[in-house]
Amino acid sequence: MVIKEGKLRFIGVVEHADELSKVRIHSEFCSGLKSLNDFSHVIILYWFHLRDNKKERSTLQVVPRRHPGAPQVGVFSSRSPSRPNPIGICVTELVKIEECTLTVKGLDALESSPIIDIKPYIPRADSVPDARAPGWVLCGPPT
Amino acid sequence: MVIKEGKLRFIGVVEHADELSKVRIHSEFCSGLKSLNDFSHVIILYWFHLRDNKKERSTLQVVPRRHPGAPQVGVFSSRSPSRPNPIGICVTELVKIEECTLTVKGLDALESSPIIDIKPYIPRADSVPDARAPGWVLCGPPT
Repeated sequence: MVIKEGKLRFIGVVEHADELSKVRIHSEFCSGLKSLNDFSHVIILYWFHLRDNKKERSTLQVVPRRHPGAPQVGVFSSRSPSRPNPIGICVTELVKIEECTLTVKGLDALESSPIIDIKPYIPRADSVPDARAPGWVLCGPPT
Repeated sequence: MVIKEGKLRFIGVVEHADELSKVRIHSEFCSGLKSLNDFSHVIILYWFHLRDNKKERSTLQVVPRRHPGAPQVGVFSSRSPSRPNPIGICVTELVKIEECTLTVKGLDALESSPIIDIKPYIPRADSVPDARAPGWVLCGPPT
């Protein structure tokens, strides 16, 4: 049997987006943050809510526009918000946690973006400093 | 307005899970793989389909069982498959692409897991070799 669809319940929202961003976790999910302070970095999964429509979710190739000189590539070869499932992931520095609100540095998400998940950053699983990437990803912002 | 839910359409499936795993992208999404070969590593987002039930999705704290000595922590401080949105992410080495099938090394997903997204691994955004993590994550498997 091939499973075709899944359902997400958003666990929070980007309350403020800037160099330091505020991510508020809804109170019913807040106890899931226990001990997150033991990690210096977290991976945030969020929903590109402005791209959650048929046109953007049918896009399969893009010219990454924030990267001058980028060729047309598949959406799975880019971090474009236009993709079949409009999920963004971002590695951020965890600055502090106050009650249910995280202050993070380096979150590339718009204000009001729904939050899907928070995961601890684990260097031995997640860090590959010498991974190979094409030249165009070095121009413009990190993603 | 707070957006509460989102809908996923799965783009592929884990066809074989081992040291080298095979991930088949459904044909209608296959053109999204253009130029993925330019990257040595990819981030795979998949669905923990066996945990997609009310009990597992209500779990907010766990004792990570593959990590001896781990304390009880919030699910957002762990990579546990029991969590509100059963999404796994895994950084894998891209060994080869044949038509719509990726061969990858290091995928920690069960056979038949639906695939949600593929993203290129970009070291300057994704690699933080010196991120701090508590001692218990060093025992057992990487995640």
